[in-house]
Amino acid sequence: MHQSYAHRRDNEMRSRAERVIPNGMYGHMSALGLPPGYPQFIRDAAGVRLRDLDGNEYIDFMCSWGPIVLGWNNPQVERAAARQQALADSVNGASPVMVELAELLVQTIPHADWALFAKNGTDATTASVTIARAATGRKQVLVASGAYHGAAPWCTPGPSGVTPEDRANVRRFEYNDIASLTAAVADCKPDLAAIVLCPGRHDVRRAQELVDPDFARAARRLCDESGAVLILDDVRWGFRMDVRGSWEPIGVRPDLSAYSKAIGNGYPLAAVVGAESLREAASSVYLTGSFWYSAVPMAAAIATITELRDTEALDSLRRAGERLRDGLLRQAAAHDLDVAVTGPVQAPLLVFADDDDLKVAERWASEAIQRGVYLHPWHNWFLAAAHTDSEVDEALDRLDGAFAAVAAAQ
Amino acid sequence: MHQSYAHRRDNEMRSRAERVIPNGMYGHMSALGLPPGYPQFIRDAAGVRLRDLDGNEYIDFMCSWGPIVLGWNNPQVERAAARQQALADSVNGASPVMVELAELLVQTIPHADWALFAKNGTDATTASVTIARAATGRKQVLVASGAYHGAAPWCTPGPSGVTPEDRANVRRFEYNDIASLTAAVADCKPDLAAIVLCPGRHDVRRAQELVDPDFARAARRLCDESGAVLILDDVRWGFRMDVRGSWEPIGVRPDLSAYSKAIGNGYPLAAVVGAESLREAASSVYLTGSFWYSAVPMAAAIATITELRDTEALDSLRRAGERLRDGLLRQAAAHDLDVAVTGPVQAPLLVFADDDDLKVAERWASEAIQRGVYLHPWHNWFLAAAHTDSEVDEALDRLDGAFAAVAAAQ
Repeated sequence: MHQSYAHRRDNEMRSRAERVIPNGMYGHMSALGLPPGYPQFIRDAAGVRLRDLDGNEYIDFMCSWGPIVLGWNNPQVERAAARQQALADSVNGASPVMVELAELLVQTIPHADWALFAKNGTDATTASVTIARAATGRKQVLVASGAYHGAAPWCTPGPSGVTPEDRANVRRFEYNDIASLTAAVADCKPDLAAIVLCPGRHDVRRAQELVDPDFARAARRLCDESGAVLILDDVRWGFRMDVRGSWEPIGVRPDLSAYSKAIGNGYPLAAVVGAESLREAASSVYLTGSFWYSAVPMAAAIATITELRDTEALDSLRRAGERLRDGLLRQAAAHDLDVAVTGPVQAPLLVFADDDDLKVAERWASEAIQRGVYLHPWHNWFLAAAHTDSEVDEALDRLDGAFAAVAAAQ
Repeated sequence: MHQSYAHRRDNEMRSRAERVIPNGMYGHMSALGLPPGYPQFIRDAAGVRLRDLDGNEYIDFMCSWGPIVLGWNNPQVERAAARQQALADSVNGASPVMVELAELLVQTIPHADWALFAKNGTDATTASVTIARAATGRKQVLVASGAYHGAAPWCTPGPSGVTPEDRANVRRFEYNDIASLTAAVADCKPDLAAIVLCPGRHDVRRAQELVDPDFARAARRLCDESGAVLILDDVRWGFRMDVRGSWEPIGVRPDLSAYSKAIGNGYPLAAVVGAESLREAASSVYLTGSFWYSAVPMAAAIATITELRDTEALDSLRRAGERLRDGLLRQAAAHDLDVAVTGPVQAPLLVFADDDDLKVAERWASEAIQRGVYLHPWHNWFLAAAHTDSEVDEALDRLDGAFAAVAAAQ
């Protein structure tokens, strides 16, 4: 048996947090919903390794739930951020990096003719929907059942405090199901403003699905026929698989894309990019926030996207994902466990067969975190370019014990 | 006559921006709505001085529209941010500074028993309304006519892309008018979830008004009688006048306060603080964002609030505002101009008599910016602790010519 990590300081900090923060923590960073062994607090991070308050070290595969795409403390990104910080961050207006970043996005993303910036992924998805409504003069928006598009009242997965009116113009269909989408579009006509799609099905608590290219093409065609706007919510996967947009490999171009997370390798930024046909509508919507023009995250984003575009970073990231997937499948087979590694290798999720209640996944993740591997039982993971072969192998070595523990319990 | 500032590089950058950003810029940072002479882009900033791309220097009284409360590049704040940056910013969980900041807010703000964090002021106001609805099980929210509470569909001042349903549960009353508020509460009963108030009337394009303490007390009483939640939207003024909350001097305590802007002296952060009675409701609402747990802005906020609480910073800021106000009134009188300096001296707005169309204010602000003083024709300004007597006096020297130009044109 391995030696369990101590969590004395983490537990002390959780007790302090319980007194001054609702539930002690909230949202996706709360460790309350995780199986035993996860630290709530992190002391420091570098490359793809984290240390908690008790000094336990983890090889990480969550990358801050997506923002970290190159690795923590990437020298190119940190240098660009420090250079801009010495000039200006939050001032009365924009810094030149805002224009340079918009130009870079327009050059890099084929469907983008303009860009605007915000802070949260939810800002970007909400702005996209608002722009689509402004462009079409229509109200209805179609989203996939179970899809996550943010935490605003119109889209949050938690119903507390939400009114029926907040969602009165949001209707559902099944992802990757052309008949379901076609029927939903027919139901909404002539009031359909937009179809909002993630680049794949990455809903929590279930196996991920890549998009069926025929489904993506059907969505494009249905929008074209109905005059609705096709919005790609690329917040979670964007810049991790293809710097041109996550649907560029299948050749389906949305009218608007929402980005955040990996855009600045951890610096807070979100973006909406759009086609020329939506420029006027985007200009008409009042969008703003106190820190939306801050220059340091934009300088970090220029460095991040340039690195992803001009180096082998995304190849390294993909190869690390493949190595992790292959190792996981090999180990599971050796332990006679029936598993699948679902979704893209860059943002995979391991699922166990016959595990609808996720008990096996939670047991396995709990065994993994106690061996110093940070991944998640039911939300997709994230690889970074900084994951080396030896770090993936070291993680796999540690994970073998987690598979053995799960096999022994079955 | 003064020599006009050149804007060749600013104009070049505007042309580039027009191609890749809707309207060339958006939101409150767009210089399009400002009179001639304002730069759209800023190169660098330090203390209370800005430089644009053409090297023109400005003594600033907008402070990034509020976030800068100590001055740009405050050494205490920058040191705290750098120390945390060397450890961790955006990681898988929270850093200890999140708990320390929540503890500091609870210690500092008398009505706060807990705190949670986000990025935008709009996140904080929207979360406050959602928590109030969760707590009461009711839908209606009362806001003052003309008040700004953010740029989400439920509250944005721009109607483009907004549906009637987005605002179906928002009703209006007149600020500082007890009869109007009382009637609005009666209209909403029994479905009133919250009254949302700014600490004063700081609507754009009109004279500011301090709150009438009787009005604030009436709002408190109406909430207590009806079981509704009193929300103070302290995003714009918070931490600038009184570190305990902007209504603490008049002794009226809200149930929830929304903060952002000055909380971290320019680092991106927002907060909701609340009373014990709302802790359970706050725990029930799903609130999250990719960068809401980032540690560097929290470290900056601890340094900022500690500085505001434990030093003479807020006294200096107030004295600078008084010196500016007194100087402006003296100068205007000398030029036989009828003006008022409205609102708090820490966030004042100069208005000219008989200037409903703001033509005089715009002329004056245009003359001011061309003499190197950055203030605003129709949005309140912001003083910082770094405004020294000599800088205020230097600004006043430059402004005398602006008053002279306005007087000559009348």
